[in-house]
Amino acid sequence: MSTSTDYFAESFLPRPARNPCVLVLFGGAGALAQRKLAPALYNLAQDRLLPREFAVLGSARTPRSDDAYRDILRQAVQQHSRRPPKPEVLESLLRQTYYQPLRPDRQADWKELGRRLREIDDRHGTTGGRLLYLCTPPEAYASLISAIGRHGTAAKDGRPGCRIVIEKPFGSDLDSAARLSGLLGQWFDESAIYRIDHFLGKETVQNLLVFRFSNAIFEPLLNRGWVHDVQITVAEDDGVGERGGYYETAGALRDMVQNHLLQLLCLIAMEPPLRMDGEAIRDEKVKVLRAIGALTPGEVARQTVRGQYAAAGGKPAYRAEPGVAADSQVETYAALRLEVRNPRWAGVPFYLRTGKRLGRRVGEIVVTFKREAVPLFSRPECDWRLPNRLIFRLQPEEGICIAFDAKAPGPRLLLRPVRMAFNYRSSFEMPSPEAYERLLLDALKGESSLFARGDEVEASWQIVDSIRAAWAHAGLPPLLEYPCGNWGPDQAGNVFTDPETSWQTA
Amino acid sequence: MSTSTDYFAESFLPRPARNPCVLVLFGGAGALAQRKLAPALYNLAQDRLLPREFAVLGSARTPRSDDAYRDILRQAVQQHSRRPPKPEVLESLLRQTYYQPLRPDRQADWKELGRRLREIDDRHGTTGGRLLYLCTPPEAYASLISAIGRHGTAAKDGRPGCRIVIEKPFGSDLDSAARLSGLLGQWFDESAIYRIDHFLGKETVQNLLVFRFSNAIFEPLLNRGWVHDVQITVAEDDGVGERGGYYETAGALRDMVQNHLLQLLCLIAMEPPLRMDGEAIRDEKVKVLRAIGALTPGEVARQTVRGQYAAAGGKPAYRAEPGVAADSQVETYAALRLEVRNPRWAGVPFYLRTGKRLGRRVGEIVVTFKREAVPLFSRPECDWRLPNRLIFRLQPEEGICIAFDAKAPGPRLLLRPVRMAFNYRSSFEMPSPEAYERLLLDALKGESSLFARGDEVEASWQIVDSIRAAWAHAGLPPLLEYPCGNWGPDQAGNVFTDPETSWQTA
Repeated sequence: MSTSTDYFAESFLPRPARNPCVLVLFGGAGALAQRKLAPALYNLAQDRLLPREFAVLGSARTPRSDDAYRDILRQAVQQHSRRPPKPEVLESLLRQTYYQPLRPDRQADWKELGRRLREIDDRHGTTGGRLLYLCTPPEAYASLISAIGRHGTAAKDGRPGCRIVIEKPFGSDLDSAARLSGLLGQWFDESAIYRIDHFLGKETVQNLLVFRFSNAIFEPLLNRGWVHDVQITVAEDDGVGERGGYYETAGALRDMVQNHLLQLLCLIAMEPPLRMDGEAIRDEKVKVLRAIGALTPGEVARQTVRGQYAAAGGKPAYRAEPGVAADSQVETYAALRLEVRNPRWAGVPFYLRTGKRLGRRVGEIVVTFKREAVPLFSRPECDWRLPNRLIFRLQPEEGICIAFDAKAPGPRLLLRPVRMAFNYRSSFEMPSPEAYERLLLDALKGESSLFARGDEVEASWQIVDSIRAAWAHAGLPPLLEYPCGNWGPDQAGNVFTDPETSWQTA
Repeated sequence: MSTSTDYFAESFLPRPARNPCVLVLFGGAGALAQRKLAPALYNLAQDRLLPREFAVLGSARTPRSDDAYRDILRQAVQQHSRRPPKPEVLESLLRQTYYQPLRPDRQADWKELGRRLREIDDRHGTTGGRLLYLCTPPEAYASLISAIGRHGTAAKDGRPGCRIVIEKPFGSDLDSAARLSGLLGQWFDESAIYRIDHFLGKETVQNLLVFRFSNAIFEPLLNRGWVHDVQITVAEDDGVGERGGYYETAGALRDMVQNHLLQLLCLIAMEPPLRMDGEAIRDEKVKVLRAIGALTPGEVARQTVRGQYAAAGGKPAYRAEPGVAADSQVETYAALRLEVRNPRWAGVPFYLRTGKRLGRRVGEIVVTFKREAVPLFSRPECDWRLPNRLIFRLQPEEGICIAFDAKAPGPRLLLRPVRMAFNYRSSFEMPSPEAYERLLLDALKGESSLFARGDEVEASWQIVDSIRAAWAHAGLPPLLEYPCGNWGPDQAGNVFTDPETSWQTA
């Protein structure tokens, strides 16, 4: 018996976006545009998923020609595409690509941008459809959104046909997130706002909903009756690199927990949505976040651990990274225990941890189940036991497995933990697309399931703000050092409710 | 993520049998002794699992010398052992092996056998311990058991230290099985009687109990709340071969259903036993069989299908096999629906099928679960769906897998059935021992879990007898022909309660 490959390759063909549209990239020559968006666009083009009436307009402060911009994107695709680009597809995409310099404070530049967009509409039949994508640093969001609104770039005649995509971080706390949503709300319907969390574009993350709600046998187990704890780990092995300046304003809590980790928690903990559409799914996610709510300072002291990486194995300490203060108090590691106070999950601890410069890059959700009610197999049959676990691996390799006990072969009745595994790559024999491909295609189509809604973002800021406030005020827990390459501070297990729990990775 | 190999090889070492003992093989030069017992003995010897004080005494009608018998067993091991025999181990085992001719109706022969056994006791320190193994044809059982009892072969001083192993078939119906148990009971305690069903020696069969009762997450699903149906298939691709004469007196129902298939049904349907010991496990198995009980003629007409293979693809029809009557009405295929009328399983159909000359050799238990309560993913996402299934494969390769729905990779939300698989061989990187090794060792140790108890055998005959009586009396259902290599008669699906069910194989 081996992992089976049951599929009809043809049925996998995704449906192309149909809405005529110009994709406007603000900050269109930056790192995100080059590393993620250009390759995603190219791969969508190769798979014939872009709308027939489509064009790209890059925009940034630096004046440059269309061709100079095309050179940038061509190089970016060649360097970062998951598939080697086919020249005819790439050149055809670049022929639909333009560049327009823009100093957001100059009215004339916005006028020129508008003129250029209409010219593109005429040439490509895009009829005023717009997908505005903010790939600028977050500091620029507010003024850019205001200018977009004031200068009518958002509108064809009013608002329809125009959507806006915003990268994380969406605000830096509850207030700023609410202000940003308020500002966007002046010019865009909530349904036209696409807050990106690229984790939600990963195959296994999307598969969480399928796994839970399309398979009758797993869902009955996911509740306080059977689950001992849930652990969510998103570990990175690299440091802050060139992003020290930004990271100093963020830290692990805001950079990772507020978005990726809490989103994963929502997907594993949410009730079945009424329908599989963006509104119904996000309704349930918000309910999970609100069932967690703000932590009291006492809870923060008991239920959180924070750390910062110290030099080790030839890697510099966080405080020695470029752009980082020599006495920085910013956490590069956070471990939390959260409680989802609803009938399904009351009493089940959710353990979250994330950090930089940890042992290796891994993203996993591990559901550990309670042990059997009566241990029928006792010593000596079970000299070495582990509880049942359901493991969703998100990165580096995507897959799902169940850890369970089996009888070891041989005349003796001896139990051993083994795994039943499903691996995306080997099961489907095709590489998974990049998260940005899925997200960009969904935004082009107007499909919002994988994007965060305003109330969802605010509910998650409420949790994170309560932790940060306690950290800032009481200084509890202390900021602990951990050597690069370790799995966080030794005290990371302080968040556990019982001494039998340990951090799990597959 | 791949199937993991978590084990400490050393801990697998089984514990040797300790009771001093002479293994007496009645019918010791026959096919079973040569093909199964000799290789099993050799492999137990190689693994140092036989008692230190141990000897083998073969016995049959034909006069031959110890050395002539040793030659027979040497050749049998060389031909049938799963591992190439090590000469020093094999020769050492053969030096402990003896032969004694026995005509069961001659008192003098029994005396001689007794003398020989005492002589072996003296030489090998086996101190009167006996494991009497009947590997004769079943017709010989009754007279052999009587003679064993009458001539005191069973007794050291009284009964302890002496066990008896009996091969299937144990009786040919309820009456004969009860008579045989009664006869045995005159000379042996029930606890000293080992009724072999070699299916129970298979790794995956033993693993059924571990899987169910040592893993908290599967057991909650195995009941009428979640299970749609259970299917047990034991299919053979070969015909009756040389066994036509015996098979004419048996048929698929007695040859396979009464023992193997009903035993598998018991293991998947039984309640958790009080303890993991032979008595407690068999208590629960008996309860399952009694919850099925005898079928009425009407139920037999609706819930059973019987067939006989016809010539096809160069293979002869059953009626053309040697020893088979030209107008034989014996079934070589049987499909049944049974109901386990207890609170756990009421309303869940158990489908059993077995046959000769079917598509391929396979032994499987497939638990098909009900679908999710609300189909959240509807067309077009699920143009091709299967229900969740839990599959135990017993042969040819042993393993367990769960079939479930996953999202196919790609920008489209499309569901596909995939599998999470656990494979014995690749997970443990060691070959499973043969069923007979486990069973022989257990019998030597006095461990009875994997052997059928008298009341268990009688309860399963009650089910089988009720079917045979209705077939014989009413002739319903008709005996249907199926071509060799087909999966039984086309009408095999008549036993299903609903048109959505189909026969499942992995």
